[in-house]
Amino acid sequence: MQLGMVGLGRMGGSMATRLLKAGHGVTVFDLNPEAVEAVSAAGGTPASSLDDLVSLLDAPRTVWVMVPSGDITESTVGDLSRLLSSGDTLIDGGNSNYKDSQRRAAAIAKEGIDYLDAGTSGGVWGLDNGYCLMVGGPREAYDRALPILKALSPDEGGCMHTGPSGSGHYVKMVHNGIEYGLMQAYAEGFELLAAKKEFNLDLAEIAETWRHGSVVRSWLLDLSADAFREDPRLESLSSYVEDSGEGRWTVDTSVELAVPTPVITAALHARFRSRQPNPLGGRMLAALRNQFGGHAVRSADE
Amino acid sequence: MQLGMVGLGRMGGSMATRLLKAGHGVTVFDLNPEAVEAVSAAGGTPASSLDDLVSLLDAPRTVWVMVPSGDITESTVGDLSRLLSSGDTLIDGGNSNYKDSQRRAAAIAKEGIDYLDAGTSGGVWGLDNGYCLMVGGPREAYDRALPILKALSPDEGGCMHTGPSGSGHYVKMVHNGIEYGLMQAYAEGFELLAAKKEFNLDLAEIAETWRHGSVVRSWLLDLSADAFREDPRLESLSSYVEDSGEGRWTVDTSVELAVPTPVITAALHARFRSRQPNPLGGRMLAALRNQFGGHAVRSADE
Repeated sequence: MQLGMVGLGRMGGSMATRLLKAGHGVTVFDLNPEAVEAVSAAGGTPASSLDDLVSLLDAPRTVWVMVPSGDITESTVGDLSRLLSSGDTLIDGGNSNYKDSQRRAAAIAKEGIDYLDAGTSGGVWGLDNGYCLMVGGPREAYDRALPILKALSPDEGGCMHTGPSGSGHYVKMVHNGIEYGLMQAYAEGFELLAAKKEFNLDLAEIAETWRHGSVVRSWLLDLSADAFREDPRLESLSSYVEDSGEGRWTVDTSVELAVPTPVITAALHARFRSRQPNPLGGRMLAALRNQFGGHAVRSADE
Repeated sequence: MQLGMVGLGRMGGSMATRLLKAGHGVTVFDLNPEAVEAVSAAGGTPASSLDDLVSLLDAPRTVWVMVPSGDITESTVGDLSRLLSSGDTLIDGGNSNYKDSQRRAAAIAKEGIDYLDAGTSGGVWGLDNGYCLMVGGPREAYDRALPILKALSPDEGGCMHTGPSGSGHYVKMVHNGIEYGLMQAYAEGFELLAAKKEFNLDLAEIAETWRHGSVVRSWLLDLSADAFREDPRLESLSSYVEDSGEGRWTVDTSVELAVPTPVITAALHARFRSRQPNPLGGRMLAALRNQFGGHAVRSADE
């Protein structure tokens, strides 16, 4: 099958490569000419602009957009909606907010263009392992795109039609919220292992052992075993941790739907706290203990 | 190798069976004669008492105790310490508190008996998959027990010497604390999926899809896919959830060592709350909202 891929970053570039390996024709565009050259060297057809990309594809076209969520996705989808024609399909594989995907799908449907919101998981490992795809939007458009969806996902499964527009990105949002909770649970446990100093526990060997037969075995544990093998106490890293939107939207959704999510919320807040070297909340606790009990405080310089 | 197995419940019975299949000689005892008969039918040597079990084994003996933690483990280990001789090895494979294991190992060492605290994970699936074993205690005793430890654990790994006495059960305790956090993260996520009613999401298909290529794939997710396949909204179950000690000890340890564990703690508290049909905390919130704002309350009968 023939596909246009817009956005050749860590995810888009690997996905284009995986599709080329599977024998699909991929026409590629990125604002960075070097990224276009890299995928062209692997067999992709280079496009010099969105205009050029659309003109290089035969109708009905399928274009996969893999760019950062937010303004860049908004403008890219807007530009493509003007260039594509009735009968074409536009797929947003990024981490868009599902409400944006619902709005974009409705707007573009007026032009006769089908919109698929494809939640994509697997990170940099997807090139070899395949990506897990959660796809919302018109069922017929999903069925037409199946050859590329199947090529992108693992051989044994990992690709589904979740339901109406927005549902693919909704499912991906919750997936990432769960991921925050899972990661924090492992992080707390391994910190407890390290804190029991008299046992001098080998975190790498424990992670590796747990991978076999234990209840907590998982892909994130596989990655943990690799990380501790390379750096037994992760001393080369700062504990500063970013978040990238889906965790916040999951907590927003828990508020909107009144569903208690104490663990996912605590995991998100742990990341916020990780980025504050001397937070006001902690300074206020110190001040109040000093005020009512004369407890010693540390100055900001200590 | 020759082993005595005391306690033939869900775990002990399956472990004895797995050892018999691997060609080891297993002499078995349980207070329930039917459990002894079942394992004897599979090739085990029945014992009629702890006394009998010890007399049926050749010195140096190895006895694996797989009984509920707490009083039953305490009395069983006490009885065996009087029956066994210098040079024998006693293995506690249950979920004992690691501080009890440290105390028992020190007491029994005075009799010249080696004590191994073997954290055992894998549940009812261990019979086929193998058990993950985290073993603390004297290194030489671990090495002597390796033939049975290797037979119990998966072929590809899953068995380690964690360090001094107590460290095996400490690692198992933290393993179970992590398990609480992981389970709660999935539980919250799937509740968010179900709560988005307009998408009418297929939880079984989502769990199955996530098993392939996604970041959240794990053994607990495999079990989730099975559960939702059998009962799409788990409507046959009550949301009442028990806890069995290790989660509490993990949180106790976080307090003792001053390690923040917001996710594991929230997961434990969610289980406590699940068992309270009309908790006082909630009644107090309702009362206060009524007191200061005249907000409507519901009576206990509603």
